[in-house]
Amino acid sequence: MNLKIALLGGDGIGPEVLAQSVKCLQAVEETFNHHFTYTEGLIGAVAMDKYGSPLPKQTIDLCKASDAILFGTIGTLKYDDNPSARVRPEQGLLQLRRELQLFTNIRPVKIFPTLINKSPLKKHVIFGTDFVIYRELTGGIYFGEKKLSEDGTQASDLCEYSEKEISRITHLAFKAAKNRRKKLTLVDKANVLETSRLWRKVVTRISESYPEVQLDFLFVDNAAMKMMLDPNDFDVILTDNMFGDILSDQGSAICGSKGLLPSASIGNEHAMFEPFHGSYPQAAGKNIANPVASILSTAMMLSHFGLHEESLAVVIAVDKSMKKHVVTRDLNASSKYGTTQVGDFIAGNIIDSD
Amino acid sequence: MNLKIALLGGDGIGPEVLAQSVKCLQAVEETFNHHFTYTEGLIGAVAMDKYGSPLPKQTIDLCKASDAILFGTIGTLKYDDNPSARVRPEQGLLQLRRELQLFTNIRPVKIFPTLINKSPLKKHVIFGTDFVIYRELTGGIYFGEKKLSEDGTQASDLCEYSEKEISRITHLAFKAAKNRRKKLTLVDKANVLETSRLWRKVVTRISESYPEVQLDFLFVDNAAMKMMLDPNDFDVILTDNMFGDILSDQGSAICGSKGLLPSASIGNEHAMFEPFHGSYPQAAGKNIANPVASILSTAMMLSHFGLHEESLAVVIAVDKSMKKHVVTRDLNASSKYGTTQVGDFIAGNIIDSD
Ligand SMILES: [Mg+2]
Ligand SMILES: [Mg+2]
Repeated sequence: MNLKIALLGGDGIGPEVLAQSVKCLQAVEETFNHHFTYTEGLIGAVAMDKYGSPLPKQTIDLCKASDAILFGTIGTLKYDDNPSARVRPEQGLLQLRRELQLFTNIRPVKIFPTLINKSPLKKHVIFGTDFVIYRELTGGIYFGEKKLSEDGTQASDLCEYSEKEISRITHLAFKAAKNRRKKLTLVDKANVLETSRLWRKVVTRISESYPEVQLDFLFVDNAAMKMMLDPNDFDVILTDNMFGDILSDQGSAICGSKGLLPSASIGNEHAMFEPFHGSYPQAAGKNIANPVASILSTAMMLSHFGLHEESLAVVIAVDKSMKKHVVTRDLNASSKYGTTQVGDFIAGNIIDSD
Repeated sequence: MNLKIALLGGDGIGPEVLAQSVKCLQAVEETFNHHFTYTEGLIGAVAMDKYGSPLPKQTIDLCKASDAILFGTIGTLKYDDNPSARVRPEQGLLQLRRELQLFTNIRPVKIFPTLINKSPLKKHVIFGTDFVIYRELTGGIYFGEKKLSEDGTQASDLCEYSEKEISRITHLAFKAAKNRRKKLTLVDKANVLETSRLWRKVVTRISESYPEVQLDFLFVDNAAMKMMLDPNDFDVILTDNMFGDILSDQGSAICGSKGLLPSASIGNEHAMFEPFHGSYPQAAGKNIANPVASILSTAMMLSHFGLHEESLAVVIAVDKSMKKHVVTRDLNASSKYGTTQVGDFIAGNIIDSD
């Protein structure tokens, strides 16, 4: 298969972990006889510094002309700690998601058996946890109108949702549930929010087309509790943009390392794959960042294009790196392996698996 | 001391657990020679069923004429599962908080040493956890304008904050931090939300008046992670209404039982005390609800009026109930004690402590 892949490393540790993903994809090309091309584009603080915009037009054009986008991470301390900055690196990612209409963020939360001891949760609580969060990604309060009064004493953010926005992600989530344990939990705050009540109404109506899937409802505060007390009871979680942001980060903490989980952002025409974690600018350039989440996001990409055997080869190579303790220091404080060594090991094992 | 106390039992298990609190306060009266009067008022679904409103005028009047309000819980399945209901029991509580200008919700999260094994978190993660959440309670998206388009396909909720709203709770939180471990964490989403950026600006300015307190910032998704990975690092968390709702429920799950944690809602003129947990309508009337959170909220009330010795007597009696295993079934599945028996034991030990 030929694939045109856009590489957007972004800020912080993004470029380093993405470089390991490319190594792994090159190993896949070699092993399975595919041909992928890679073109780099700028986004985030690095794009602001160079072009004055967190999402330059040439980056948008590149993404639109690509089959898939591999994304690193975004955000730097320089902009985070400056509340008066009006243009922010994160806007690059938000704009890109909206521009490409990547309306669904998919975040699997599954614990690696070899790493169950890394979880902050007790073994009997975390055991068997395997769920996936479908987070709406282009609507809600992150994109609604923002206002600051002229005297700077009054601010507002508008949360909006339409039936159409809710409907398209809901179908994807129900289809996923059908192929899993057939349970879908809508997380909302329908006892207080009008948008949540619209979600409940639309999702309830759509559920009639998926009679084999059990639908239940959970308020977001209860969901945050349940993720601590009973995470293995979840199968597919469907929720809005902001609730999904909070819950998927809480979900990643379940696994004990922020560096392990991949994610996909899917639209009708484009697809982007990225690690779950942030840009950890403090770790940038030190060869200590864990590349596994980024590498596993390439496995999600390969699956997305139907390359299931190739995807599995990547996952198996990652699993082997854990079993052989070829991991970064976040997983083993005394590890001698850095970002590039872990990437080399995993890529090497993709080739050897042939 | 003479105190006029309004009792709002509300829905579900609220009235049952509140009855145990009254027993304990009567024990305090007897032991320490105070005189409290108790007047009941209706709120929530029970008020809707009787008066057609979740917050009848006579309840507001009662609360305004009282020194303190002891609140039970609110919400029933009947209304939760009906997304088309326009008037909801929870509106009673939201309205009351706004009517009395109870702008600060205070939620201590502290693990009872006897119950550390109940936590879903590993012992080394949870050990030493002792923080308090200051949640803004009368502003933000829960109170902003709600809209539903005429054809029912578009909904919105508005999140608004003013400098004044942020400022008054911020001072309370800094004062609390000064008397604790001198650390305040503002939780927001300032990389995306305009309201969060206003919070950051106002809190940063106010921090200059509290130089002994260390201020840091955390995005809400990172806070949800940290509460799982590193909860004992928090001291005082300051946050807005919705983030506080989610994080304080996540915080309660840390303790392993939803029935243990009290809370206070404070304004300039009124003060309300209530358990942290929900109305669990499934448990109502079965004498199985844990009354400890409600009883500990009376301890917060006693402290609020400067009755520190009395407050401590309540806490010590609760601690004794745990050490003697006089607990409800949520803490010990084979327990033979119900709600009223636990209430009797704790009240009895307040008297005996004299
Ligand atoms: Mg996040
Ligand atoms: Mg709550």
